[in-house]
Amino acid sequence: MAEPSSVDPWGTVKIKDYDQLVKVFGIQPFHTVMRLMVEKGLPLSLHMRRGIIFGHRDFDKVIVSALERGEKAAVLTGFMPSGRFHLGHKLTVDQLLYYQRSLGVKVFVALADAEAYSVRRLPREKVIKLAVEEYVASMIALGLDPEKTTFYFQTNRGTPYYRLIQMFSGKVTASEFQDIYGDLTPAKVVAALTQAADILHVELEEYGGYKNVVVPVGADQDPHIRLARDLADRFSRDLGLKKPAATYHKLIRGLDGGKMSSSRPDFTIFLSDPPDLARRKLMAALTGGRATAEEQRRLGGVPEACTVYDLYLFGLIPNDRELRRVYEDCRGGRLLCGACKRMAWNLLEEFLKNFQERLEQAKEIAWKVVEAPSF
Amino acid sequence: MAEPSSVDPWGTVKIKDYDQLVKVFGIQPFHTVMRLMVEKGLPLSLHMRRGIIFGHRDFDKVIVSALERGEKAAVLTGFMPSGRFHLGHKLTVDQLLYYQRSLGVKVFVALADAEAYSVRRLPREKVIKLAVEEYVASMIALGLDPEKTTFYFQTNRGTPYYRLIQMFSGKVTASEFQDIYGDLTPAKVVAALTQAADILHVELEEYGGYKNVVVPVGADQDPHIRLARDLADRFSRDLGLKKPAATYHKLIRGLDGGKMSSSRPDFTIFLSDPPDLARRKLMAALTGGRATAEEQRRLGGVPEACTVYDLYLFGLIPNDRELRRVYEDCRGGRLLCGACKRMAWNLLEEFLKNFQERLEQAKEIAWKVVEAPSF
Repeated sequence: MAEPSSVDPWGTVKIKDYDQLVKVFGIQPFHTVMRLMVEKGLPLSLHMRRGIIFGHRDFDKVIVSALERGEKAAVLTGFMPSGRFHLGHKLTVDQLLYYQRSLGVKVFVALADAEAYSVRRLPREKVIKLAVEEYVASMIALGLDPEKTTFYFQTNRGTPYYRLIQMFSGKVTASEFQDIYGDLTPAKVVAALTQAADILHVELEEYGGYKNVVVPVGADQDPHIRLARDLADRFSRDLGLKKPAATYHKLIRGLDGGKMSSSRPDFTIFLSDPPDLARRKLMAALTGGRATAEEQRRLGGVPEACTVYDLYLFGLIPNDRELRRVYEDCRGGRLLCGACKRMAWNLLEEFLKNFQERLEQAKEIAWKVVEAPSF
Repeated sequence: MAEPSSVDPWGTVKIKDYDQLVKVFGIQPFHTVMRLMVEKGLPLSLHMRRGIIFGHRDFDKVIVSALERGEKAAVLTGFMPSGRFHLGHKLTVDQLLYYQRSLGVKVFVALADAEAYSVRRLPREKVIKLAVEEYVASMIALGLDPEKTTFYFQTNRGTPYYRLIQMFSGKVTASEFQDIYGDLTPAKVVAALTQAADILHVELEEYGGYKNVVVPVGADQDPHIRLARDLADRFSRDLGLKKPAATYHKLIRGLDGGKMSSSRPDFTIFLSDPPDLARRKLMAALTGGRATAEEQRRLGGVPEACTVYDLYLFGLIPNDRELRRVYEDCRGGRLLCGACKRMAWNLLEEFLKNFQERLEQAKEIAWKVVEAPSF
């Protein structure tokens, strides 16, 4: 695994303030962990190999050590069910699949229904339906094993979980909270303490006693990680909590190079998009192509600037060698954007078709495996 | 029932800012409600008759109406189990007894274990033991029917209760919160929203569906009432919540005329005080006596200034006529402080003896009727 450099096929997505994350906040670069994993014979995920996962906290101490010692471990993530499931969400689910299938790590998925209700002002019934039929069903259709995955609503998680929230509240001061989150409102306080409970409750015997926990996040979610780690420290004696690990991943861009988000549907591929619509979005995507075909043949394209290349990099082309060939063909001016987009569409169409075929059945399974809140 | 005046035997305890409570905050005077209750044939409590309960919000609309229509109603209070049970706590329990025995109203008692842990920094085990053996046991020994009373720990109340806290958090802004509570810390936010859930959760079907709720409080607890009432309004459509009623009572003073509180043991009668100790505290109590016996015979005592008279007023002398006689004998110079204190001690000793005889068995019952949190 080469270090990221300007001509690295895995290095297209730039992390803003990467140095700051490492130097100021103490996030560690991930490549040293990867060497350790290879030494220990642990498989790397596609997102690790390609540098999409760029940083971590204590992944070596918590997860690598646990796997080496044969101890149980857990991975936890959460979704606010307030929009439609898109490729940005899939990035996280792909990581969960790796933990579940390749490492045998237990998977927990929190559904932030209270936050969707209070922050997004969505009716409760809509939030619950969206959570089950859009989020949980998509995760199952993507391959998460419903038998081995715990999906839960934050407002339905049982008493010891809520007890944590109440106990945590007494061990964070207003100024610490403001340092971490920037401001302080009742909704934020409860949402943040709830997320800390999400991360830490799986360490309690009542929820399986998983002391080795990792949370895959984008860098923007680091405040939650810091709060949970601080609280674990403060409750290490009373509740036997251990600091959780985290990994930090780059985010997939929208098709205009901006954010991929439910609120920007024209630049976001939703997994339930009708093929025609997905095709139109893809064909209009921002690429790293030149002004003319002649120029592109002469100078080569710029995959680093290309949102279609992003799709390949984040998983649409799973084979590293094949990805490298596409990268080199683009830079060498041998692969022009029209042909490249047709290739991308073939891959994406196949993926969406397979996914959508599985989705209806996955919805039925989803209602069976998730206990919906009563209001 | 006469209006309070300067020579009223029920008027000894002055309410600071009484006018402000009524005019600024909209608390209503209680005497008009009493007239209504008498009209409807509802019995008045000792604390109502004696003006100790001086104000209310919607007691007429919520409780009097419910009783008139034969609808079920509930009274709710909460204790932070952080000290020992004293006569100040008894004032609230006496009110609960009235609701339970005389009005047939369902009683709920919240035990604020999380707050005791986070605010008072007491170890969890100690908090739980204190809650059961000191608070719940005392309430049972005072006569609350353990079969008809729901005692619960705030950290052990079940999922729909916590769901309320999370949903409430989204409907209070930071500035509203600051207006009501003065400041904003994570501990206060969670404690305040938890208290709102205490007051309102009994309206949910899951907890009995008691839509007519009253909360007896001191005026210092009014912020919680205001928050709960605001939230009930905001969730009237989504959750069918109805604004709770409240009554406001004067607080019994400590034996030096200051606050009666666990943190001031010399001036506070604890219900588990050994008789000798209680006697010494009582004998040193501040009275409304004059400098000399001669002067007192001539000018009379001042029961309004006397903390021993407070004990009588708040219930040590249950008979109103007898209380009036003591009041008049004091003011007329016929009852001097020495004899009066001996009389008070006879009554108090009898009360403590009976109470303490019942306490050990009440502790056993308490452990059976309260489900203790697992950590």
